[in-house]
Amino acid sequence: MAPKIKDVARHAGVSVTTVSRVLNGEKYVKDDLKARVQRAIDELGYTPSHIARSLVRKKTDLIGVIVPDVTSSFYSTILSTIEKTASLNDYNLLVCNIIEDTDKELKYLQVFKQMRVDGIIIMHEKMDDEIRELIHKLDIPIIFSSVKPVDQKFISVIIDDYAAAYDATRHLIELGHKRIGFIGGDMRDVTSGQNRFVGYSHALADFGVEVVDDYIRFGDYKTQSGYEQMKAMLACEVYPTAVFAVSDDMAVGAMNCIHDHGLRVPDDLSVIGFDGSQLTEQVRPRLTSMEQPILEMGKVTVDKLLDLISGNDDLSAEDVILKHKLVIRDSCKSYVNS
Amino acid sequence: MAPKIKDVARHAGVSVTTVSRVLNGEKYVKDDLKARVQRAIDELGYTPSHIARSLVRKKTDLIGVIVPDVTSSFYSTILSTIEKTASLNDYNLLVCNIIEDTDKELKYLQVFKQMRVDGIIIMHEKMDDEIRELIHKLDIPIIFSSVKPVDQKFISVIIDDYAAAYDATRHLIELGHKRIGFIGGDMRDVTSGQNRFVGYSHALADFGVEVVDDYIRFGDYKTQSGYEQMKAMLACEVYPTAVFAVSDDMAVGAMNCIHDHGLRVPDDLSVIGFDGSQLTEQVRPRLTSMEQPILEMGKVTVDKLLDLISGNDDLSAEDVILKHKLVIRDSCKSYVNS
Repeated sequence: MAPKIKDVARHAGVSVTTVSRVLNGEKYVKDDLKARVQRAIDELGYTPSHIARSLVRKKTDLIGVIVPDVTSSFYSTILSTIEKTASLNDYNLLVCNIIEDTDKELKYLQVFKQMRVDGIIIMHEKMDDEIRELIHKLDIPIIFSSVKPVDQKFISVIIDDYAAAYDATRHLIELGHKRIGFIGGDMRDVTSGQNRFVGYSHALADFGVEVVDDYIRFGDYKTQSGYEQMKAMLACEVYPTAVFAVSDDMAVGAMNCIHDHGLRVPDDLSVIGFDGSQLTEQVRPRLTSMEQPILEMGKVTVDKLLDLISGNDDLSAEDVILKHKLVIRDSCKSYVNS
Repeated sequence: MAPKIKDVARHAGVSVTTVSRVLNGEKYVKDDLKARVQRAIDELGYTPSHIARSLVRKKTDLIGVIVPDVTSSFYSTILSTIEKTASLNDYNLLVCNIIEDTDKELKYLQVFKQMRVDGIIIMHEKMDDEIRELIHKLDIPIIFSSVKPVDQKFISVIIDDYAAAYDATRHLIELGHKRIGFIGGDMRDVTSGQNRFVGYSHALADFGVEVVDDYIRFGDYKTQSGYEQMKAMLACEVYPTAVFAVSDDMAVGAMNCIHDHGLRVPDDLSVIGFDGSQLTEQVRPRLTSMEQPILEMGKVTVDKLLDLISGNDDLSAEDVILKHKLVIRDSCKSYVNS
């Protein structure tokens, strides 16, 4: 049996109230009483219940995190940084992995409320009306990370996804490519779906590159969907000479499809990814990618949330826009018309 | 302001005690009182505090999870299955990502105790005396997943790592290889370090394959270490014709190193991995691997822990040994002496 507060009191020969006052660090407790209580705690190996203390402190040191898919190379890395930063600040993470399940997200948000988490991090922007209504009523600090939902009430920590996609596409154009395919995300997502698609489209328009409908395809950010969309593009009579995929996982799927068709990256087709996850270095050829500063993004997300929790910031504060960066590896090359 | 229990009582025109009795599902509450309380709860949008209820129920519905590195392809997959199974059973995960940090593990175990988690899952077996002592004193159901610490008190959900490594090595021997390299894990780990090494060694001995010290190397399970250990092997005057790495991440590192040296997998060197993670399908050539049943392992871990929590099982119960399976893809081929 784990010792209880009354056991400590009995062992120290003091009242439960006195033990409680020592545990809560109240002033005006005599030093010799403090010492006796501390000795009893040490001797019995007593651990105060965080639950009971939470009721007094009105603070749980818990952060709820909603992540779309922990097996993706992007989300696992950002989650690991969020966890690290939270832990350094003595916060603990309740993690919900939703994988396109609105009911589960709703259930978890209610669990977060019941658990009285001090703050919530959401890395997902597809939400139905029920979720939208709930998060507005929650009365808990919320921050979005890597996504910017249409709703303006909440702060996001993001990059400029439009500009990043524009710059990735421009890189291919500057390499001389004139037939540039696109593997986009879910168009219900503003940040990673719509904004990246518009960035691609505007770059083509600005540089007078032809838009070919068959070269514009959409996946679900995962490797397999990149493979399938690339397969459809390779089935075109004339296929593209370069492809931009809006996640590294999809770009790797596209590279694999090209390989399995007996073609070579980058000699036959150039491929550029998005995220800058560890997968870019795990494949051959190494994947050129538009990098999000994943580690910084995770850290800033937690720092910003802790500001909100402690009241150092307010909900009208602005989004944090981090810098994207093109990292050139081995999967793109200049197009020379033969 | 979120409504409190006394607001519900006032709204329903009953005492706080009555509301509490309704919330706790006690018998002998009159139906009309129940209905009035429920109506007040609905009208005010009251959510009972999980913290306060936990004190009454002596149950938090929390599971603490200690994972070595959430960015590894193996651990992110097993974590996602653990989360899914826990969520289906209305349990929530507190996740600690330790990355070789004993102090952090110790701190989290104490947090788990303070949070009064109902159970703990540990996927890590390197522990110092302080951790060992703490987990024995915790008085919380603990289960180990994918690892089997030397200590016999706790149940593990694992495969037979010795046999799996033996079978992986035998596969290479049966393909005709006589110079077989090994990239092992941390030899302080019994399960993934020692047992897999002994499996490799015994297979070589049983089939009369020569042991070459320079071909036996150890990494930290990550891609980069697989790359570096392979680089050292390729620097040997005569290098191996096949390599067995005890994680898929290290096997992929080895494949990349072989590629970067201008050699081909499997034409010049065969590579076999271990885990059967999604990375095996993300690389080219696709990686032949000794598969752990990752999804089953995560599910069985949670099921078994819930048995322990509900008292359906006891600490003397036996380990669960799941089946390993060789999955042949494209990274190994027969060795023909030229």
